[in-house]
Amino acid sequence: MKKERIEKVLEKSASEALLISDPYAIKYLTGCEIHPGERFLGLLLSKDQDPILFLNVLFPLEKPEGLRIVSFSDSDDICDVLSPYIDRNWTLGVDKNLAARFLLPMQKNNIAKDFINGSLAVDKTRAVKDEEEIELIRKSSQINDAAMNRFKTLIHEGVSEKEVASQMMDIYKELGASAYSFDPIVAFGVNAADPHHMPDDTVIKEGDVVLFDVGCVYKGYCSDMTRTFFYRKEPSDIQKEVYNLVRKANEDAEDMVKAGIRLCDIDKCARDVISEGGYGEYFTHRLGHFIGIEDHEYGDVSSSFTDLTEVNNVFSIEPGIYDPSTMGCRIEDLVIVTEDGCEILNKYPHDIEII
Amino acid sequence: MKKERIEKVLEKSASEALLISDPYAIKYLTGCEIHPGERFLGLLLSKDQDPILFLNVLFPLEKPEGLRIVSFSDSDDICDVLSPYIDRNWTLGVDKNLAARFLLPMQKNNIAKDFINGSLAVDKTRAVKDEEEIELIRKSSQINDAAMNRFKTLIHEGVSEKEVASQMMDIYKELGASAYSFDPIVAFGVNAADPHHMPDDTVIKEGDVVLFDVGCVYKGYCSDMTRTFFYRKEPSDIQKEVYNLVRKANEDAEDMVKAGIRLCDIDKCARDVISEGGYGEYFTHRLGHFIGIEDHEYGDVSSSFTDLTEVNNVFSIEPGIYDPSTMGCRIEDLVIVTEDGCEILNKYPHDIEII
Repeated sequence: MKKERIEKVLEKSASEALLISDPYAIKYLTGCEIHPGERFLGLLLSKDQDPILFLNVLFPLEKPEGLRIVSFSDSDDICDVLSPYIDRNWTLGVDKNLAARFLLPMQKNNIAKDFINGSLAVDKTRAVKDEEEIELIRKSSQINDAAMNRFKTLIHEGVSEKEVASQMMDIYKELGASAYSFDPIVAFGVNAADPHHMPDDTVIKEGDVVLFDVGCVYKGYCSDMTRTFFYRKEPSDIQKEVYNLVRKANEDAEDMVKAGIRLCDIDKCARDVISEGGYGEYFTHRLGHFIGIEDHEYGDVSSSFTDLTEVNNVFSIEPGIYDPSTMGCRIEDLVIVTEDGCEILNKYPHDIEII
Repeated sequence: MKKERIEKVLEKSASEALLISDPYAIKYLTGCEIHPGERFLGLLLSKDQDPILFLNVLFPLEKPEGLRIVSFSDSDDICDVLSPYIDRNWTLGVDKNLAARFLLPMQKNNIAKDFINGSLAVDKTRAVKDEEEIELIRKSSQINDAAMNRFKTLIHEGVSEKEVASQMMDIYKELGASAYSFDPIVAFGVNAADPHHMPDDTVIKEGDVVLFDVGCVYKGYCSDMTRTFFYRKEPSDIQKEVYNLVRKANEDAEDMVKAGIRLCDIDKCARDVISEGGYGEYFTHRLGHFIGIEDHEYGDVSSSFTDLTEVNNVFSIEPGIYDPSTMGCRIEDLVIVTEDGCEILNKYPHDIEII
């Protein structure tokens, strides 16, 4: 049980009670990792009673001190299971990810007076990492830096994106990670101009850019980094221009990060660099996302996210230019916000590198 | 586009329109596989207009003939994006998996008159496989049979569950599969008595049972099979009793499968065998689940699922006994329902096998 985290969540909550169903939020708050698939899983938090975990009997659990477990089976009706513990006059904050197949019957059966999205209280707590988390995130990115050094050596004549990707897990495991934090992106040539390209049978050829967007999980915490290399050939002048623009966008944004500034202003800083360089229309996504137990957590570095940075926010800075006629390029680091700056977690250099 | 499938879904729909958000349902209906992560993705089906896919600009797509695309970006409000295409007087059938963070604002903004769980129309259509699907499911299980023959050879003195599991993907890929259909279960000894055990550092020892619950994906379709072996030692009489009870439960259930019978009766048949043998309390889950594009699809072989079988339903038959003091054992096959029986997809024998 993570009592301090639960207290912070309840302090932030806009409703009397919260019903959290996201497995990662439950892991964050209880230390218990349960992936119930299509079955219901819920953690009820309220000021008046101990936390209650509603858990299908199929998932045995070593009960942590201070957690009450209410068991049910596949043949039970979820509303019947929940009702005895929920006051019909409550406004119930439900998980942002709660599936309609659970929410619609709860509404129809009026198990609470009103239902609101209650995840913000959890999300805002998760957005400020505690010391235990910071240490693990730091280590996860150290592994990712070491892995990037190895990944680039997988590139050789005749190799395909898929072949490269298939060797990455072993390298992460050797370095001490347990899993990918997301399916790795390996993109050669024009494929790099699709920000979400998945490794396919494309074979490397001289002059291609090679984009790696990769991350691993270390003791439950994620890393995430992107580098763009050039294969066996000096980039053209226009490619250098694009690369250096992306690099400047990344570094100018990282330079301005500190506690108490608007996240949208960091996005604007990077976007202005790319727009002034004439490539604004090819930077098609937000500058970054928060990260921790999950690769994408609540919190954006985007034009619409006006929240202020706080000490121990952890997020990505990942400007990109995706111009199929020139090149696709992205340079991404993770940063931890400090009082008067930030700690850049990825030490792998930003220089143009021919591999 | 899969026009026939869409027509079948609309025929079965209880509402004027359906908003499907599940990526696998969208793949089934359009052929397009998009995994939007935390971003919105929706396919609107209604009798009066062509299907419309609401797609974030971050996910480029080769537009299939007959599909209308409405693009939006991260800064757009989803209700604003959807409203022009949804009649405020409709009852809107939403996806069973639609997340509360999308559903609650749709309700608050009254983008439709009422919201119901509309997935049943899709799920019931998906539960009856067409010929194209049957062929792929058959092939996926052929690969799984061949893989089981290889997996058992991975067991040797000193090996751990995790080490065995780490070699399975390469075997599947050699055999032509693209991925696991679920994280494989490898359980030694008492671990087999936990139906959802995940491979850990447990090392094999003489006399252990070895349970493999494994499946792969072939061209988008899943397989799923369980076998329980004995390591280097003849099972005890009581272990033989448990094994043969599970085997009889499996085979009696498979013998009765044909079109037009209640799925709960198949569950009862297997459950009665195990209960009469004195182990009823240790068979803690449903007998089976439907399968196809996903490992677990709508449709249960369970005491509460009273629907009738139909020709070309595909589901698992997987009785088990989980008695930590004796042994854990499960024997699972996939079957395709035919007019007067079933095709058992897994040919790997049910006999007691010492490895």
